[in-house]
Order: sequence, then C-alpha cells, then structure tokens
Amino acid sequence: MPVRLRLDVGYDGTDFSGWAAQPGRRTVAGVLQAALERLFGTGGATGLTVAGRTDAGVHATGQVCHLDVPAQRWAPLASTVAYRLAGLLPADLRVAAVTEVPAAFDARFSALSRRYAYRVTDTPWAAPVLRHRDTLTWPRPLDLAAMTEAAAALVGEHDFAAYCRRKQNASTIRTVLELGWHRDPDGVLVATVAADAFCQAMVRSLVGALLAVGDGRRPVPWPGGLLALRQRADAVMVAPPHGLTLVAVAYPGDAAGYAQRAGQTRARRG
Amino acid sequence: MPVRLRLDVGYDGTDFSGWAAQPGRRTVAGVLQAALERLFGTGGATGLTVAGRTDAGVHATGQVCHLDVPAQRWAPLASTVAYRLAGLLPADLRVAAVTEVPAAFDARFSALSRRYAYRVTDTPWAAPVLRHRDTLTWPRPLDLAAMTEAAAALVGEHDFAAYCRRKQNASTIRTVLELGWHRDPDGVLVATVAADAFCQAMVRSLVGALLAVGDGRRPVPWPGGLLALRQRADAVMVAPPHGLTLVAVAYPGDAAGYAQRAGQTRARRG
Repeated sequence: MPVRLRLDVGYDGTDFSGWAAQPGRRTVAGVLQAALERLFGTGGATGLTVAGRTDAGVHATGQVCHLDVPAQRWAPLASTVAYRLAGLLPADLRVAAVTEVPAAFDARFSALSRRYAYRVTDTPWAAPVLRHRDTLTWPRPLDLAAMTEAAAALVGEHDFAAYCRRKQNASTIRTVLELGWHRDPDGVLVATVAADAFCQAMVRSLVGALLAVGDGRRPVPWPGGLLALRQRADAVMVAPPHGLTLVAVAYPGDAAGYAQRAGQTRARRG
Repeated sequence: MPVRLRLDVGYDGTDFSGWAAQPGRRTVAGVLQAALERLFGTGGATGLTVAGRTDAGVHATGQVCHLDVPAQRWAPLASTVAYRLAGLLPADLRVAAVTEVPAAFDARFSALSRRYAYRVTDTPWAAPVLRHRDTLTWPRPLDLAAMTEAAAALVGEHDFAAYCRRKQNASTIRTVLELGWHRDPDGVLVATVAADAFCQAMVRSLVGALLAVGDGRRPVPWPGGLLALRQRADAVMVAPPHGLTLVAVAYPGDAAGYAQRAGQTRARRG
C-alpha cells in the first residue's frame, strides 16, 4: 500500500522555469522530483501533484503538493524526511513539512482556496534591497486609496474572462474571496488576493489593471467594468511574475481558513 | 566650490565582487561610480569613499559613502537625485538618500561605529526561502544560550588579532560595543555586532567562533580565550559572506547612536 504525503513547499522562483517539469529546464517539480527519487529510490515517489502551478519567475512560501510513496520505503525515513530533504535540495527550494495524509487528499482538487501576495514599490530608491527579487519596481507614485476602491469591485463570484488567458471550453467563473492593498512598514505596497481558484495569469492581470488605476492612467471603475467584457481584455497589462508569491492554500479541516503551514514542521534530525 | 554629498546605500552583495572597484569585475563602487558619472557627467563625481569596505558576497542596508560634485552640476539635480539614481542603478543596488554635508564630513573617518547583522538558520527546512541569499544554512542545532554567553566575553576593548587576517604594522585593537544573538520570529538566528571599527574578516571570524560554540564543538569560554593569542587563530572558521549585512554606520550628531537612515529619503520625483 502506498502512503500519501502532503508536502508544504517554498521557493524563490527567480531561477526556475516555473513549477511544471520541462525537459532541459530547471523547474520546481523537476528539482523536487529528483530529490525525492534520491530519498525514496527510483520509482519511489509517484504522482507529484501541486495545488497551484506557478508560472516562471513566480515565488511560493505556502505551496502544497502531494505524492505517493510505497509504505516500506516511507517507514524508515518518516521521522527525518524534512531534514534529509533539506540536505538534498538547493537553497532556493525548501520543503517545510512532510505529512502523512488520507489517500483521498488531493493537493489540487481538495484545495478550498489559494492566496497570493503581490509586492510593488513606488519609491524605488527606498525599497528594501534584499527583497528586490520579489518586489516589482514602479517608477510613478501609486494611489493606495484608489487601488483599494477599484479592488473592492472585483471581489465575489464573477466571470473573470477579461483577466484570463484565452482558452477554449474552460469556465472563467471564479470567486474572489479577498482582494485588498496595504502599505508595509517598509513602504512596499502589497496586494493580497484569495480565490477558490485562478485561471492562468489571473492574479497578475488583476494586479496589472489595479496598477493602471493606482498611477492615474485609468479611472477607479475601470477594472470592475472589464468584467462585463466576457473575453480577454487586451488593455490589461499582465504584471511581471517576480512580484508574485503564492502564500497559502486552504484545505478542509485546516485550523485557520488560510493557515500558512510553512512554520509548522514535523521534522526531526537524522 | 565642490559640494560634498553623503549617500546612504544598500545592496544585495550576491552578484558583486565586493565594494572596491576592480577592473573587469562587477563591484558596488564600480557600478555606483558609473551611475554617478551618467548623472553628473564624466569627472563630475570624485573621491568616492566608503564607511565599510565589504567583502565579496556581503550585503548592506545601511552603508554610507561620500563624494564631491561641482556645485554647478549639483544645483540642477539636487531635488531629484535619489529618484534619478534609482532609474540608473540595477535592482540590487539602491541609494536611499543623498544629503549635502559639510566638507569636513568623511564617511570613513567621521564614523563612530559600524553595526553588522549575521543571519543563520539551524532549521534549514523551515528557513524563509525568499531570504536564502542572506541567510547561512547550518545543518546542526545551535544553542542560543551558549552562543550568547560566549559572545559576552568578546564585548569591550581588546586586541582582536586572533580574529583579524594577518597584516603587518596595523593595530588590531578594537572596541566591540555590542555582540549578541537573538532568534527572529521566523526562527532565524541573528547576531548583531557593533564596534568602533573592524579589521578585515573580523565579524565573520567572531561569528565563526561563536557557531563552533553553538553546535557544541567548542566550549563557551573558547572564543574569549582566543583574545590572549595576539595573533590570527587558525582554528577559527571565517563564516561565509552571504549571511552578513552591514546595517548601520553611526556619525556624530545622528539622532540615534546607530540610526538606520535607509528609510529617510529626501527624494523628489523628476
């Protein structure tokens, strides 16, 4: 009988060509699968499935995936797996927790919601330089109040076709649970976006539309008005990937709705 | 008459070969000087002098330097200089503030003290992955209480020859004003070290000796006992550069002793 494992994963997306394995490219799934095979043996880790397939350059602190491992390979490693994996993985990819879960757990289909954060500085001279890899630089001042007001119109269940890449035969109806902006103590503007699910490039398109409001190129009602289009809005900029981080995925039974599990480890040293 | 300028500078040291300009290498001083010459014209920015010449791979959030600019080149740019510099500099090098100072101000010789931070994680699976570039990974548990006790013996005026690179005819007497450890909310251990001045590799040597205590390879009195050597202690590991950040330089008249000026900008957009 295989054991199903949940992995809580974080990565600096800068030097990865996204999540999904691609021949000849350094991807998160590719590097993770190779480390898992070193730990559990060839064929010992199967069915790696992720909650949110992030694009090239996008980061994660609260990504979740699952996989199956034969029980006889799992048992001897169970208590030290997070510690051993840390030694096999590069510094820009971390597995914060490895947890045995019921066979019915599916990182993708069991997820209730995903939460992302997008960081942008409009005072580039004062931006925290050690966060330049996950912070977009914006050369003009951004109006926090206008962006907040425009964001409110996007919350709820809508057809987000205007904010999705063109794709045939796929629903673009999503429920945005939360979409807001705040300014961090260090001056960086942070958008927080949570939804049941996102279509491709949706978070970066929402952020792109709101940035156009923030720097005065578009009026406050513009992002909400685009929802009526029912097709991709070409006027919407897809914000660059490096400002975006997947911060949490929520599942039924989690202590908090969007519990960030990265701090919670079951690791023991070998 | 030239105008003397103080620059408050931050950088992610990962992709720089240290501060000091070297032909054919990407250095902080080299990249900064090139941007200053684009702004003030060739020969318009002279005598770039830094408070703390950081080694390759070392970061800074509170570095300070000074330079001289002819008054007629300075006047038209004075109000927009930080904004314009941000547009000329790469994302891993920021000038947070540009301030006119008296001609007697010398970034190096006027400095009363320098303060550094060193970050190390002893739970590599749980380390904040977006800070992997400025956090050392330590594979064994570190004893915070033992490191704190050992650090206390190094505070004060001592001959730090044991912790300096061998150099002839130079005093190795320094006054360490502060040397302590704490654990951040995210579990990362942070050493804070302040002194009137440091000899080369001194901070990283102090950290290296304390890490040996922290993981039990050396007893608590060992780092303090090395002070009696009066020459470089070969048994002391020089901790890797990427965990180290220059966080502040203090000058007479600063509001606070170790005021971090990075947040304080006089910038106006052009």
